[in-house]
Amino acid sequence: MTWHTDYIVVNTENRYEIRDITPEVERIVAKANVADGFALVSAMHITASVFVNDHETGLWSDMMTWLEGLAPRKPDYLHHRTGEDNADAHLKRSVLGHQVVLPITKGALDLGPWERVHYAEFDGRRRKRIIVKVMGE
Amino acid sequence: MTWHTDYIVVNTENRYEIRDITPEVERIVAKANVADGFALVSAMHITASVFVNDHETGLWSDMMTWLEGLAPRKPDYLHHRTGEDNADAHLKRSVLGHQVVLPITKGALDLGPWERVHYAEFDGRRRKRIIVKVMGE
Amino acid sequence: MTWHTDYIVVNTENRYEIRDITPEVERIVAKANVADGFALVSAMHITASVFVNDHETGLWSDMMTWLEGLAPRKPDYLHHRTGEDNADAHLKRSVLGHQVVLPITKGALDLGPWERVHYAEFDGRRRKRIIVKVMGE
Repeated sequence: MTWHTDYIVVNTENRYEIRDITPEVERIVAKANVADGFALVSAMHITASVFVNDHETGLWSDMMTWLEGLAPRKPDYLHHRTGEDNADAHLKRSVLGHQVVLPITKGALDLGPWERVHYAEFDGRRRKRIIVKVMGE
Repeated sequence: MTWHTDYIVVNTENRYEIRDITPEVERIVAKANVADGFALVSAMHITASVFVNDHETGLWSDMMTWLEGLAPRKPDYLHHRTGEDNADAHLKRSVLGHQVVLPITKGALDLGPWERVHYAEFDGRRRKRIIVKVMGE
Repeated sequence: MTWHTDYIVVNTENRYEIRDITPEVERIVAKANVADGFALVSAMHITASVFVNDHETGLWSDMMTWLEGLAPRKPDYLHHRTGEDNADAHLKRSVLGHQVVLPITKGALDLGPWERVHYAEFDGRRRKRIIVKVMGE
């Protein structure tokens, strides 16, 4: 059994941002060099998401607008008594989820035609990490 | 280590639909024939969900009504500038999630008494696939 | 390959409750004694969640208030025709998700600085189980 662990570092320009990380994930999966396997892709910070959806910038904007409606940025969260101002980020990340498990078949990600792996940042402009852990044989 | 990969094909009669896919998943898991393992069940299309919840048609209706409230079908999404009309489906699928990992113990799915695996379709009436990838020994 | 399966039993004092289960998960992972691996932590009941977020009680209150806004407890769900009164719990659990897969590297959970595993109960005061299934080597 092969295990391969790597980390993607992101440092977004904006507080809120969505980006397609499929190319980075594919590079790591290729290094693991397994025919069958699973790749866990998981945000290591609790104000960010990893999810699978469409690579379409209009939809990315729709998602951010929608999440702002569901979990608005505002001052009166109890979490802010700690000095933080990012409670909305903790909630938004819960909606999209923080990790995915990607199947690997015949040496490559076994995804549908439009499936792309994305990272969503809700409290950016700082160094964050995503773990990509591959197991297979 | 055993790896077994299969695909469930669905083609729903309705645009929006929930169905219990536990029997199909169990058939695939039985073929893999492992004592301990994990089964990844993942929607390969980005307007559908795979989730675990109750097999109860009243609840399924409640879920659809609830999701329509959270992410309504309406014309004015930016995603629709591409010619699509299904932005709500991309959002709804995000709430329920698109995949589950099921534990296998003593040769069978190790689920609680009411846990059932469901597929939710939000842009149906076309051929879609779900991957079921089992690893174990 | 090592497989280790264990179950955490919870019986909350309140109907709605969030608790940090990281110590219990770490104890089970330590027993598995693997250098590289995955630990699946999954609620076995369909009115509860397992998720990763901040260990901060103000945020936990914010999450419960927020979920009550998104999926309120109220009588008029179709699910209640079965005699149940917990449809809101089935919906709330869908937002946070019911399982996580935790990476294990160098013999320990490979988590970010603030990542903690939580259990959220939305229909408590009764015996519930969480499966923790570890595989690795």
